[in-house]
Formats: sequence, structure tokens, C-alpha cells
Amino acid sequence: MLPAILSSPSSSSTSTFPLRYSSPSSLTNLSSLPLTIGCRRTSKKSTHNNCSIRVQASSRMIEKETPETERPHTFLRESDEGSSGDESSKPNSVRARFEKMIREVQDSVCAALEDVDGGGKFKEDVWSRPGGGGGISRVLQDGDVFEKAGVNVSVVYGVMPPEAYRAARPVDNGNTKPGPIPFFAAGVSSVIHPKNPFAPTVHFNYRYFETDAPKDTPGAPRQWWFGGGTDLTPAYIFEEDVKHFHSVQKGACDKFDASFYPRFKKWCDDYFYIKHRDERRGLGGIFFDDLNDYDQEMLLSFSTECANSVIPAYIPIIEKRKDTPFTNEHKAWQQLRRGRYVEFNLVYDRGTTFGLKTGGRIESILVSLPLSARWEYDHQPVEGSEEWKLLDACINPKEWIC
Amino acid sequence: MLPAILSSPSSSSTSTFPLRYSSPSSLTNLSSLPLTIGCRRTSKKSTHNNCSIRVQASSRMIEKETPETERPHTFLRESDEGSSGDESSKPNSVRARFEKMIREVQDSVCAALEDVDGGGKFKEDVWSRPGGGGGISRVLQDGDVFEKAGVNVSVVYGVMPPEAYRAARPVDNGNTKPGPIPFFAAGVSSVIHPKNPFAPTVHFNYRYFETDAPKDTPGAPRQWWFGGGTDLTPAYIFEEDVKHFHSVQKGACDKFDASFYPRFKKWCDDYFYIKHRDERRGLGGIFFDDLNDYDQEMLLSFSTECANSVIPAYIPIIEKRKDTPFTNEHKAWQQLRRGRYVEFNLVYDRGTTFGLKTGGRIESILVSLPLSARWEYDHQPVEGSEEWKLLDACINPKEWIC
Repeated sequence: MLPAILSSPSSSSTSTFPLRYSSPSSLTNLSSLPLTIGCRRTSKKSTHNNCSIRVQASSRMIEKETPETERPHTFLRESDEGSSGDESSKPNSVRARFEKMIREVQDSVCAALEDVDGGGKFKEDVWSRPGGGGGISRVLQDGDVFEKAGVNVSVVYGVMPPEAYRAARPVDNGNTKPGPIPFFAAGVSSVIHPKNPFAPTVHFNYRYFETDAPKDTPGAPRQWWFGGGTDLTPAYIFEEDVKHFHSVQKGACDKFDASFYPRFKKWCDDYFYIKHRDERRGLGGIFFDDLNDYDQEMLLSFSTECANSVIPAYIPIIEKRKDTPFTNEHKAWQQLRRGRYVEFNLVYDRGTTFGLKTGGRIESILVSLPLSARWEYDHQPVEGSEEWKLLDACINPKEWIC
Repeated sequence: MLPAILSSPSSSSTSTFPLRYSSPSSLTNLSSLPLTIGCRRTSKKSTHNNCSIRVQASSRMIEKETPETERPHTFLRESDEGSSGDESSKPNSVRARFEKMIREVQDSVCAALEDVDGGGKFKEDVWSRPGGGGGISRVLQDGDVFEKAGVNVSVVYGVMPPEAYRAARPVDNGNTKPGPIPFFAAGVSSVIHPKNPFAPTVHFNYRYFETDAPKDTPGAPRQWWFGGGTDLTPAYIFEEDVKHFHSVQKGACDKFDASFYPRFKKWCDDYFYIKHRDERRGLGGIFFDDLNDYDQEMLLSFSTECANSVIPAYIPIIEKRKDTPFTNEHKAWQQLRRGRYVEFNLVYDRGTTFGLKTGGRIESILVSLPLSARWEYDHQPVEGSEEWKLLDACINPKEWIC
């Protein structure tokens, strides 16, 4: 459902950077793309110096990140904060306001999750890159309510090859050949896996992308896009929960355009498709990408509204289900569905597969994976069972709101 | 380490068919390739008829398999058993003897595993394809000793595009353009995951491939290849176990060629490489592919020797470790390493990724995945610990035999 070239990046990896791309092969010229974090010195690496070997091997794709002890007030380059007279460089630029929004969302979601968990606390890793940009990774693991929850923000300054840019947005004059196009990208990305098998997993990701070419560069007009989505992955269906979740998504969409919810609901069902199973990963929500054919301010507000809808869409469901009694069989079924989650993320998710291949910060990329997962040979739920109903809804996406 | 075009197929998927290929994109013309099994009617499918939808969607890549109630004495086409005067069609042909060998290996390995398990029994699925070929999948799940063990054999009659064939084996006259080349492939493939964290996982796969063009077809000479390997993936290192395992592999190799063990040991270390972790999946063994530059009878004997070495290489280790007392921490580390196994198989293993993309029999392909696996955020073993030693050996492959 995405353009063959320059489609969306990650939608479920929490390490997602919001660059638009098609496949790793189209990015082999991204020699200076600082989109990923290299490796960090750890005990396992220190004696063998494999770290430097890996960085060398993939040095053309990444710029190594630097751990920071404190969160900077912004990851924007100084020139983006100053008063260069360039609209995109002002503090009230879209990039500045988007960064502010995603960091506020990270704070509010983490606070809400810690609040509902009661015991677990987020561990934070902050990093920056010499050329600008950076990120904050937060993970709550093995809490009272949540098995694993990752909420990451990142800001990336990179360079994309002109082929990619031109494919995304054909220029008027096909003969004009721009050079590599600098870009700016920022996003928040999260996957939250609860312990209780009746409490659903949620994923959300909102991202903003801008090309950064000097004004009036031939063949490289300034451009921007928004992408994102929020989707629910339960192991068991509580129809009221799924309806509530979709209603909140629809409510956020309807404030902006009546066509958004039906369009982005279908896009979500199409994207989170485990082809080899002929199943969706879960029960969907909304997903959109490459959005720039609306007013930029409107889409910034829309993304903000969607990101702010995560808490009201998800937390009430968790409050309701987190203490539901369950059996080992319920847990085993949840674990099987977690296996499907792993299959989708490792085999299909663009952000994950791209991140792995380009030398991204592995721990950030794979924080989207559940703490544990299960694969049984030829498991078939009994027809009519609760497990079968979930599978049925993953095979045949439903309209949850009439 | 494999040719860009026509490299090896699966080496760790138990659904592996022994076709040589490079990437799915090079196989889009394989309109009649019956290498995979379609879907089987199950309760989850029966009401929605998704089964037929999936078969339709990927009908150009697969020929649907038919479940069989009994094992046929051979999966070879009748013409391969008769006396057509063609060498490859005789009962003592290499293809016939290879099929006999892999079926005997399947029987002996399954018997040895049931014997050591004590409680678990293999479940068998037999299937055939209308155009010839078929397979036997056997899975032992949740036994006393083994968490999950799959041992599969398959025989495939398919057609490969001339581009693929020519890339593998350039013809003398570059201008000759053969049509699609029929091929024959057969293999045994297995992954065995024990429960005890001190008992290692083993994988083996031996395969034989033949092109099947009529004699003297211009640009399409008859050709054959052997491939295979056996490798060990422990969560903890017992040096005596690893040395024993490698010694048996070396013993099998040395009977044929002194260069085989060092060459195939390195090939194994190179192949089972989790690039995004800069780690090998395990502690290696032997791996080879595209072998045809030796006497065909010698390579048939060599493959047989290797396949017959699985039991003496592996079973004594299991006998020694299956009842070792362990803690929850030991089990958690095993589960983390199982997560790495999943990462390798879903992200890198050629057979698995190809099988998933072409509509193969999912349950056979993914039987290689462990019953359960685990992902912790940023887990780092303490330097010098037993866990660290295993990781160190996966990062820095060692010579186990001096």
C-alpha cells in the first residue's frame, strides 16, 4: 500500500527514524546518513574490540552516537534554533514544535504507564550525534503490570540520495539532477507489552520528515511529510475494549477529516499483515504515511491529536484488564501471539528490518520485541473458542465501529 | 560467502528444499516451482475459505501439497524409478540413493531422540505433490528431554529460470539461451532444542540438487550439487562437549579430504552470523554448499557420512547434560540465546526467509523456531561469567581442535 520507492520506514520499531525509504538497496548511497546509533562499549566488547570492527564495517551507513548524561533541551542543531531568517530555523518552526510535541508525549505516556504499573520504573538512555540530532530511549521491563514497554524519541539529520528524493516527489523538470538531499526527521515510537494475557499490546509511532535543501535548489524543492499510527494487539477479544480503542482513534481523526479514520483504519489492516500466515498482527487502529497533501499546520495538529490519544485509548483498557485472573493456557496463547508479533517485526516491519541491516542501535530497534514468545508446531485453536475468535479477527479484519 | 546468484537455500530451516538460489527476487519467474506446500484445511480456515485465497494469491510460486495417510516407499517420480535408459532414472541413481539415505537418517535420528527423551514421541505429517515429490515432517514437542525437535525430509521437482541456472554455472557459449530448467532436489533438515539449558541445540541439513534438462540441451548441461552441515548452539560452554562435537565432524571430513574440515568449519562460522549483533548463532560445526568439484560418488558418500555423524556427535552430549540441575537464571539465559536463534532464522537464514516469502508450508518452515524465546533490553553478561564466555565464543569463533 506504499509507493515502491520512498515508502514509510518503521512503523513498529521503537528505534524508528522517520525517514521515508523503500528498501535497503535503495539506500546504499546514503554514505553520510547518521540515522542509526553505532555500538556502545560494553563489557562483552571491551576485551575484543569488536565494537570498532562493527563500526568500521558499517561506517558508511551510520554516525556513531555519543551517550549523554543529561537530556538536552533540544536535539535540534543550533542553526535550527537561531534566527537565521529561514522559517524552518525558527523556534516556532514545525520541526521545533514537532520535537517538543514528541518529547511531551514521551513524558506523558511514560508517566501514565508508571502510574498504572505501580512498581516498574523506566530506565532512560540519552544519546546525541556529533552532526546533530539524538534521542531518548526509555524502557520499563518486568514491572508489575507491564512485561516490557519501550517509548523512544529520536531526531535525525541525514542525507538521502537524489534518486530516493526524486522518486518520492517528482520534480517538474525531469532533466534536473539535484545532488544528495539533506533531511531532518523526528519521531516518537513505542511498543507496550503487558503481562496479563487479557491486557492488549499497543504500538504507536508518529514521525515528521523534512528535506533540508537550501531554498530554490534546482530539482530539490523543500518538502515535508507526516506519518504514524496507533494499533492494538490483544490475545483475547473484549469487544468493548476494541470498540473503545477504535472510537478514540476515530474521534481523533474526525476532528480533522471525515475520510481519515476509514482510510487510515484500512491502511493499518493492510500494513500489519503477516503474509506467510495470512493474518494481521492484531486488531488494527490507524496507520498513515507520506501525508503532505493537506495543510502542514493541520497535519501537525492531527499528529499531535493522535499521539495525545494514546493514553485515553489504551490506559482505560489496561486498568480494566490488568488484574483479570488467567490460566497457564491463557498465558500460552498470549505467548503464541507474541511469537506472531516477533515474526511481523523481524520479517516485515520496514523500520526493524532496515535498522538491523544498516547497523542501528540494536537494543532500541529490538525493544519492540516482547520479553518472551512461543512457537508451537501446527497449533490450531478449537473452532468457536476465544482463541479462535481472535485468530478469526486477525484473518478477517472487522469494522469495530458501526 | 556464497555466490551472489544461486547460493544455498536454507541451512537451518527444517522445511528446507535443496534448491540453489540467491534471493526471492531472482525467482519471480519460477512459475511452476512446486517447492512449497500450500495450506492445509484447518478449523480456522474452514469457515472463511482463506485457504483457497492464499493458494490463489501465490499460485505462481507453489503447487499445493496433498496430505497422505501413509509413507510411500519413494517420493521419486515413476520415471525416476523405471528403466528409461537414462542413468538418472535408475533405482541406483544418485537421486534414488540420496532419498534412501535421508529417509534412513530421518528414521535413525528420530529413533535416537525418542530413545533419549524417554517420554516424547514424534508426530508425523506425510504429504505429496501431484507433479511428483513430497515429504515427511516429524516433530517431537514438549518431551521429557526435548522442548522441540523437528526432523524433515523432502523431495522436490521444480523448474528454475535460465538466468539462475546460467549464473550458477556459466555455459561455454554465452549466446545460448536455454529455457527454464527442470530440477530435482532432496534433503533432510532438522533442528533439535532440548529443555535443559546446559544441553545444546543442534541443527543439521543435507541436500542434493540436480538439473533435469534433457541430455545435450543447448546451454543447459546436466549438473548436480551437494550442500549441508551440522552445527551446535549451546547456551553454556562445556569445552569437552564442543571438542567432541567438532572432532566427530572433523572425523567425518577427514575420511574424504583433509581440507574439508578447516574449510567447512570456517564456512559454518561465516554463515551462521547474526550481523546486527556481530555474533554467531552458536559454536559452529561444518557447513558446505555448491559442492560439485569432486567426484559425485565421493560427495554422496561424504554427505552420508556427515548425516550419519549427527547421532554420535550429539546424543552423547545430550545424555551427559539432560539432567544437569539448573536455576531460573540459567533458563533465562538459554531463553535469551533462543531469541538470537529466532533472530538468525527469521532475518538471515535463506531457507526460512525464502520459504516465508514464497508461500511454503509455514509449520514446517518455522518448526526450526524454539518453543519459547526471550528478549531483554540491553542485557549484558558480567565479564568473566559463564554467560559472557559463551557470548565471547560467539563473537570470536575459536578453533576447538588443535
